[in-house]
Amino acid sequence: MKTIAEYSADVESALRSLTFPGGKLESLYKPIEYALSAGGKRIRPVLVLMGADAFGDKAQEALRPAVGIETFHNFTLLHDDVMDKSDVRRGRPTVHKKYDANTAILSGDTMLTLATQYVTEVENSKLREVLDTFNRMAISVYEGQQLDMDFEHADKIALSDYLEMIEGKTGSLLGAAVKIGALIGGASEEDARLMYEYGVMTGLAFQIQDDWLDTFGDSTTFGKPIGGDILNCKKTYLYVAALEEGGQTAEALRAAFNMPPSDMKVKAVTRIYEKIGVGDKCKKVVGHYSSKALKALNATSLPEEKKEAFRKLAEKLIGRKK
Amino acid sequence: MKTIAEYSADVESALRSLTFPGGKLESLYKPIEYALSAGGKRIRPVLVLMGADAFGDKAQEALRPAVGIETFHNFTLLHDDVMDKSDVRRGRPTVHKKYDANTAILSGDTMLTLATQYVTEVENSKLREVLDTFNRMAISVYEGQQLDMDFEHADKIALSDYLEMIEGKTGSLLGAAVKIGALIGGASEEDARLMYEYGVMTGLAFQIQDDWLDTFGDSTTFGKPIGGDILNCKKTYLYVAALEEGGQTAEALRAAFNMPPSDMKVKAVTRIYEKIGVGDKCKKVVGHYSSKALKALNATSLPEEKKEAFRKLAEKLIGRKK
Repeated sequence: MKTIAEYSADVESALRSLTFPGGKLESLYKPIEYALSAGGKRIRPVLVLMGADAFGDKAQEALRPAVGIETFHNFTLLHDDVMDKSDVRRGRPTVHKKYDANTAILSGDTMLTLATQYVTEVENSKLREVLDTFNRMAISVYEGQQLDMDFEHADKIALSDYLEMIEGKTGSLLGAAVKIGALIGGASEEDARLMYEYGVMTGLAFQIQDDWLDTFGDSTTFGKPIGGDILNCKKTYLYVAALEEGGQTAEALRAAFNMPPSDMKVKAVTRIYEKIGVGDKCKKVVGHYSSKALKALNATSLPEEKKEAFRKLAEKLIGRKK
Repeated sequence: MKTIAEYSADVESALRSLTFPGGKLESLYKPIEYALSAGGKRIRPVLVLMGADAFGDKAQEALRPAVGIETFHNFTLLHDDVMDKSDVRRGRPTVHKKYDANTAILSGDTMLTLATQYVTEVENSKLREVLDTFNRMAISVYEGQQLDMDFEHADKIALSDYLEMIEGKTGSLLGAAVKIGALIGGASEEDARLMYEYGVMTGLAFQIQDDWLDTFGDSTTFGKPIGGDILNCKKTYLYVAALEEGGQTAEALRAAFNMPPSDMKVKAVTRIYEKIGVGDKCKKVVGHYSSKALKALNATSLPEEKKEAFRKLAEKLIGRKK
């Protein structure tokens, strides 16, 4: 198997070699090229390639499906950015900001269909299962996004609902990516199921770790300013878990969350989190899901050195230092 | 074969029997139920059922794919209504008006994936071709919608571009619907191709006839107030063809189009159309595409009484009286 960096470079070059209709149709396809050229870790398509290589040396065959998974991911970002009215992504204007909301909607729709086309460029014998895995995942992602939007106006959120939301929005896509790769590689049904579990659990641990880093991380290694979630009133794992304490803690947290965006607000909310030790609880939950991911991975029939490659990927994703 | 009304009733009852997740996820799925319950002629899914019955008595097997085609059609309406800021559809508030724009975007995305799931509920041996036909059609529809949006700001539109636009937005969906039905029914490659042609040409004739009716029709049988396209500055076949005359006609038309929406504006534009006889030209073009549709139909291997069923459908769609 190659290194993560090598797989990532393969994805990058496959994305760069995509060609789209020009001329009259530029206004539809330019925004798609723009969205796909934003860079990033390309973790999801890397998982497709790794799954295909691990189970059958089929990374080459999995390249278009990998590009499809990345196209799907970017379609969700385009539409999420319209819905969240986000103006910046990866240091560049979002599509609806650079073009307009209508372009972001229609180019996003096009990306979803293109993603379905690319992902299903597999042998006919594998088509049904790859297509079903992809469609089920897409539905999970929309359901997760809907829950996330509803949480904005919710007074109280159960931790179980929060976990369901991030499993939909983040976990299912990582799970489907590695499962589709495994299927292309010829994995058994049981191995494909276990790799899906590995991906979902890694996704959950990753997202909760991300919530933690946004408050307790180090901005130079995290890559984003610390406290953004608090400033934007984002209901993260920390917030939901702290609110579950009820009583005075919940009251104080609601009051602090209602402050206008400022350093003072970030400090006030962080102080509450620290007081009740919700940061530690958060880290424990990250550990819990990481273990579940590794347990699923270990139960596969993969040889040890291939398991090691997936352990490294999980470590890279979750083990990011503060 | 059944009558069009019977097929339509089958579609209606299949749509009514769809069940969606409730509870926490109601805010995602209620708008979908709402959109699918708007009624209408259900022509596109009827074409799926007719194709399947004509070539292999397989209407029952084609019911879910038919529902998928109708779900796709309604997804495009949801997103188009957001983009066009339309508040009313079929006498009811549009989804983004009844709920909000974010709901319309996300529920629309969900409908596209559900449509893909339903349409591909076919035998494995037919999956590849049905999926490819569906995805190619979807891309055509987006491209058509993009051209339509770009036309709003275009000073001059070539008739060929206008035809490309409606082939994408309307023709390809009718073509794909009947082709998918034919494939499910076991049609030969050549018959499937011819039925696609029949559907596309019927769609073109239907759309151009619709443009004509909007100005020259009778509001009681047309079902919509006459002159709506003129009031909304819609660049229809009539407008594009009249503009192609150039010179004083084009100048007068642009001036009339720039008038504020009023009965006077409708009359002024209609007078220009009448003066240059663009209504007759329009009817001639409808006839041209109708003939092409029937020519393709006649070239299939279908027995005469089945051809007759498709002729009736085209007649019902295109032959609407003013």
